[in-house]
Formats: sequence, structure tokens, C-alpha cells
Amino acid sequence: MSRNPLNIGVCGVGTVGLATIGILRDQCEALLARSGQSMVVSHVGARREHPDHDYGDARVSRDVLDVARDPDVDVLVELIGGTTVAHDLIKLAIQHGKHVVTANKALIAEHGNELIALAEAAGVQIRYEAAVAGGIPVIKVLRESLAANVVTEVAGIINGTGNFILTEMSTKGRAFDDVLSEAQALGYAEADPTFDIDGTDAAHKLVILASLAFGIPLSIDAPMKQGIQEVAPEDLEYAASMGYRVKHLGIARRTEQGVEMRVHPTLIPEHKQIATVDGVLNAVMISGDAVGEVVLVGPGAGGAATASSVCADLVDVARNPAGSGPALGIAAAALQAPSWVPVGDIASEWYVRLTASDQSGVMSDITQILASRDISIESIIQKPPAPESDKVPVVLLTHVAPQSVMTHALNEIMALEEVDADAALMRVEAFDR
Amino acid sequence: MSRNPLNIGVCGVGTVGLATIGILRDQCEALLARSGQSMVVSHVGARREHPDHDYGDARVSRDVLDVARDPDVDVLVELIGGTTVAHDLIKLAIQHGKHVVTANKALIAEHGNELIALAEAAGVQIRYEAAVAGGIPVIKVLRESLAANVVTEVAGIINGTGNFILTEMSTKGRAFDDVLSEAQALGYAEADPTFDIDGTDAAHKLVILASLAFGIPLSIDAPMKQGIQEVAPEDLEYAASMGYRVKHLGIARRTEQGVEMRVHPTLIPEHKQIATVDGVLNAVMISGDAVGEVVLVGPGAGGAATASSVCADLVDVARNPAGSGPALGIAAAALQAPSWVPVGDIASEWYVRLTASDQSGVMSDITQILASRDISIESIIQKPPAPESDKVPVVLLTHVAPQSVMTHALNEIMALEEVDADAALMRVEAFDR
Repeated sequence: MSRNPLNIGVCGVGTVGLATIGILRDQCEALLARSGQSMVVSHVGARREHPDHDYGDARVSRDVLDVARDPDVDVLVELIGGTTVAHDLIKLAIQHGKHVVTANKALIAEHGNELIALAEAAGVQIRYEAAVAGGIPVIKVLRESLAANVVTEVAGIINGTGNFILTEMSTKGRAFDDVLSEAQALGYAEADPTFDIDGTDAAHKLVILASLAFGIPLSIDAPMKQGIQEVAPEDLEYAASMGYRVKHLGIARRTEQGVEMRVHPTLIPEHKQIATVDGVLNAVMISGDAVGEVVLVGPGAGGAATASSVCADLVDVARNPAGSGPALGIAAAALQAPSWVPVGDIASEWYVRLTASDQSGVMSDITQILASRDISIESIIQKPPAPESDKVPVVLLTHVAPQSVMTHALNEIMALEEVDADAALMRVEAFDR
Repeated sequence: MSRNPLNIGVCGVGTVGLATIGILRDQCEALLARSGQSMVVSHVGARREHPDHDYGDARVSRDVLDVARDPDVDVLVELIGGTTVAHDLIKLAIQHGKHVVTANKALIAEHGNELIALAEAAGVQIRYEAAVAGGIPVIKVLRESLAANVVTEVAGIINGTGNFILTEMSTKGRAFDDVLSEAQALGYAEADPTFDIDGTDAAHKLVILASLAFGIPLSIDAPMKQGIQEVAPEDLEYAASMGYRVKHLGIARRTEQGVEMRVHPTLIPEHKQIATVDGVLNAVMISGDAVGEVVLVGPGAGGAATASSVCADLVDVARNPAGSGPALGIAAAALQAPSWVPVGDIASEWYVRLTASDQSGVMSDITQILASRDISIESIIQKPPAPESDKVPVVLLTHVAPQSVMTHALNEIMALEEVDADAALMRVEAFDR
């Protein structure tokens, strides 16, 4: 395919779709100079009528599948989201020999193995830079720039809503529900913010990053997920007082035991670059054997930033009509399933906050339980009781221990008569192993 | 060219050359899986004998030009540095129809227009990811990932030696000469560190970044350069006390007046991501109309990190035997020379440190001179005189003023009887315009 112009079919006309159409219209000459091809939006698929939208001279279809069937469309851009219609749409586009560009992380994470194999068999490209971290070009960096590295770890702040909430809680001492309401009012969070809060959205993105980083199939069921809804403002304060920031991280790590994938609130030393990434920004840290550590920071969402990545994919399609290597870096058939580290075996340092009776003996009981399970203590903060209370908060940082060992120890500690049963437990990652 | 294996000729066997040869040997299977081609180092050009080096089965030539003439070599990797032999070598390789991968920033900045035009005419690729910021994939990000953006600014810490020196001075209060000696002992700085210190090395890299960012020819004579040798430890302290860090930045900016290019010590608000990048790390911040601000942080030098970028270029050559767009993002003939903003017209906020007699009246004289030139003052620090001295340091931050206006005002101030003639002057960049 080296038609001039390259006809683009855009399905989905939300903020990203409109921004994509806008860039293709306004940057038409620059894109021609850079890609060697004119790019024209020839067909728009929009399930509803939007009298205020300007699609230029494009044909408009209410049935998005008509765009996939349009013989004049060279590249189908899928921006409708979800995993049902979008799934059918992309399969149909591939059947009709069209290249596909998508921003749909859920679809790639869940059905990417199937779709990429179909695309490879059909000799068309499927590109998805916008699916992870919005305007940050992390897909290309992993797939191309770090292709000569054995990547050992990818860790990222890959949900801007969650990072906004934690940042506000942390810097202003605000409560979770309060900040969430504001995030919804600002349009950062969806009406149903569940997937942002509980780690599902971050897990989708992490699945994609891990596949690229380690040459493994997209593994939607692999990540352990823990959300941010249970992070209390006092935990952010204690963390700060000990030199840490709390971020909702997605972490994929290759160890001698296998591959770990997990999304959870995490204490990070404040001197790490990624610890200073606040608000709706995203950041991805990649460790490779040759390059060392590379950190990419930028806008993880937003119409224009995401459209920047969509259009970069279109430029790549135009510059490389015959493709430029497999969608996941390695041909779908050559990806090798790893062995997974069971969640209980995933080791890290730990942050523990307990509420205990202010009695002599209780600290000794707690430290004995930890010692009996070979969990050594890095530091302890014990505060005086609040006025008119006989309870004291006890905050511990431990050295490295597997999750199963840590949770057993914690259950034993919470079974002590002097300790309340509502302890807080978070992983600490120093990223120095 | 889709030969299998792809024969690589490596010229230059310093740390980067050896690391490149090592990756191509050790990651042979992974590179085959990712690029679809075996890659073999078939010929090594090394001007001296190194009995301890292992080049595998490669042919070895003392005359590096023999590698360019070798009909079996598909891609020539130039890692000898400098702008004389390396220049001849690359021209010869292009004449012989070979793709070229180089880490040579000075050569690309000085002779890139010629070499890229030659390569385009010959239908071969010239790639240079390793020439700027070592392992950070900033060339690809500008050339490909942000291809749909109007880039308005690129600013970077692009000399690790300089950043190491400023970081040590800043965090430990050490003197310039002391840190420079250590940097040389650690191998961070060359035996002749002039180009690291005076901004020449950063200017070479900035020229390349600006060309990619703005679609302009490589313009070696354009950057204004100011080195770090005159930054005094007390300036770092005053900057810190006002909430700033001092970094040696390369800045390329497109304004309504034209393009600015400059390398100089710069005060940056400490909350900016780039202000927190310390030691030998590099960082590049890119502002685009669609993406907003993206920051890339990582190792700017070192054998393995630089070889990571060299090998990424080789994977790109293997994946895209027919190329993947012009070397500078836009075909050499289509690059358009910009109008340059004269150095005197480049405006910024300013940091000024004066030494004045501790007399009433002097502050009034200083502020009157500034006011007469429409330079408004953002803040002033005036310290008590040191014991047994009648001199006081006066530190000012101004609002935005062009360089010519600021230097005229400063000369007038230094002509005051009560003010010493050794003022310090540095630009302040808030990156919020």
C-alpha cells in the first residue's frame, strides 16, 4: 500500500477522535513532509449524530463497521473503546486488509494476542502507541529503542486519575472521597471510576508493557491488583516523614523465579525520579541490562496528547507501508509464556501501620512475631497516644519478605489482644535490587 | 538489502565499540527474534592492535577505510569520533552503498547536512540515535513519536560531565576545579574537558535536536554558548535558597521572532522535573502543541548505554531495509532555514549577584538603573556584610528582559562607585511561557 493520499477511517469521535481529526487537518502539510504521504480522513464512524462536529469532506457512517468495510479506507483508527464493538470492528478491518491504529488498552490487553496474530497473518499492521500512557511514547521506546536490551523491570505511574488523587491527598491532606469527587468534576475520572481506582486500568497497560518488555504473550489474568481506595491520609504522612512518597504503581519484573506483575500503592524513596511525578502526569521507568534506567514522563491522558500518539502511529504506517517489525517486538507465534511468580512469593520491603494499646510489652510481642518469621525491621515510628485515647499508632518499615510470610505475620500480630485488627499494609520498592 | 545475516562493520573499539560488539554477540538470538535477521560483526576497524579484545570471527583492519570498502559489509558503525577520519569513512561507506550508524554528535552537527543528503541520494540510511544523550532515545522520539506535533521547545541536560560537576558543587558545596579533577579521575570527563565545560559538546547535541524539532538544517554556528566554569558555589547556594536549581541547559525554542539556540547555566524552579536530574544523568524536555511536555531521563553516556542506542539503530535498519523516513524527519532538501533570534534579543528572567558597599543609597541606585531600562525586580536578597568587611552581596531575580538590555543595565550598575565590577549573571527559565 503506497497510495497517496493515505485514507484514514476514524471510528469514535470523543475527545481523542476529534483531536486526531483536527491534527490530520491542521498539520496536513507537516505530516506530508514527514511521512511522504498526504493523509486524509476519508470516513468517520460515529454512532451518534454530532451537528457541531466538523469532519471535513469525510463520509460519515452511523454503523462503525461500515468504515471497516469501506474499500477506500487504508487505515482504520479505533477510538470507540470497550471490548465488544471495538473487537468486532478491528477484526473486520483486518479481514478487509486494513492497517489498524488503536488507543484501546483494554482491548489490546484482553484480545491483543488474537488480533495481532490475525494482523500478522493478513500482512497488515496493528499499532497501539496511544493505548499506554497517552502522549508518552513508551510502546515505541520498548519495542524499538530498547530492542537490544534484556529488560528486567518496567514500573510506572500509568493511571493519571489515581496519581491525581494520591497527589492531592498527599500534598493537601485531603480525603480520598473528596478528591475523587473533584477529579470527576474536572473530567479526570470517569462517571464510574472503578477501573481507575481499583487498578484494572493500570493492569491493562501493565500487561501490554510486560509483553513488550519480556517478549511474552499478553497475559490479562496475570497482574495482582490492589487499588488506592484504602490508602489513608495518615499513611501518606507517615511515608513522607520517613522520606517516601506513595504512588499507585504498575510493576512488571523479571526475576530468577519468573515474572511478577502487580499493581498496588507503593512507597518509593523520594529521591527517585518517579516519586516526583505528581498530578495527572504519567511516568514509566524501564530498566535494561545495557541502558540502565530510563524514565519517561508526560501526559498520560487528554485528547490532544493521546491524539499525538495516534498520529505518530499513522506517520509510522505511512513511512513504513510494509511494516517495521512485529507489533509486540517479536512475532506473535514466537512469544514465550513465562513462569509466573505466585503472588504470595512476591517479595518486597513493607510498610505496616498498626494501632496498639499503649502498654509496655506490646512492642516486644510485635517484634518477636516478626523475628520468628525472619522479617527484620528497618525502622519504627511510635507516636504518643492522641488526647483521651489509650491507643497509639505504630508504623514499621521492614526489610524484604515475601507477601505470604508478611501477611501471616501481620495476621498473628492483629490477633494480639493489644493490637487492633485494622492494620495498613503497603509494599515499599527502593528499585535498587 | 535483506541479506541474512546482516553484516556489520564496526569502526572504533573504545568502550562503545566493544559494548556494541558484545551486545551483538550476546543478544544474537533476541536480536534475530526482534529484527527478523541475524546480525553478525563481520569486520572490525581498529587503528591499533588490542591483543585482549575479542572480535569473534570478524575480519580486522588497521585502516578503518577498508571496512567501508568491504563488499560484504551491509552496515558501517562509526564509533571513532572526531570530524576528520570519521567524515571520510562515512562518505566512503555511503559511496559503497552501505547504511551508516554513528554515535558522533560533532560530525552530525558539523557535516550532517552533507552526509544525510549524500545518504538520501544513495538510497542508504544514516542513523545516529547514540549521538545525543547516550541511552535516551530522544532522536527517535523527536523524529517519530512526536512527528504530529509542532514542537515549540527542546531543553536538555545533555552533557553528563557538566551535570555531575554542578550537582557536586550544589549538593556538597565543592569548588569547580576540585570536582573537575574527580570527574577526570572517574573517567566522566576527558583529559581535555574543554568541550564538556564550555558548552561545545552540548551545543553539538542541541544543533541535532533543534533540526529534528523544527525541521531546520543542522546549524552548527547558531548556538550561543556559555560554559559552567564561572558558576560560583555561592550562586548555587543563593539559587537554592530562592527555590531554584542551576543546570547547564541546551535550549532550542521557536518564538514569533524566530528560533533561539543557546547553552548556558540556567536557574530552573526546583519543582520542574528536569531540575531534579542529578549527577551524570541526562534529561531532555520536549514541548509540543499536541503532546504538551514530555521529559526523558536516563544515562547520557557510558559504553553499554550508548551501545544500546547503536544497536537499536541496527535493529531499525534490519527491520526496515528500505528505510523508515528521512534521517532528520524531513528530507534534507525540504528543511527550511529559520530566522535566528539575535543573542542580544533573547529574553529571559535573570539572576544577578553583585557585591556592593554597605552604604545607604546603593540599593536605590541599582533599582533606579533597572527601572530606567524597564527591568522589573522579582526578588532581592541582601545579606549582612561578612565580618571585617564593608561589602555586602546583593542578589536579584528580575522579570523577563532581553540580554542586551540586561547587560547594558548591569554594566551601568557595575560602573557605580559602590559596586564591584565582578557581578555574576545567569538566565532563569521557568518554562511556563
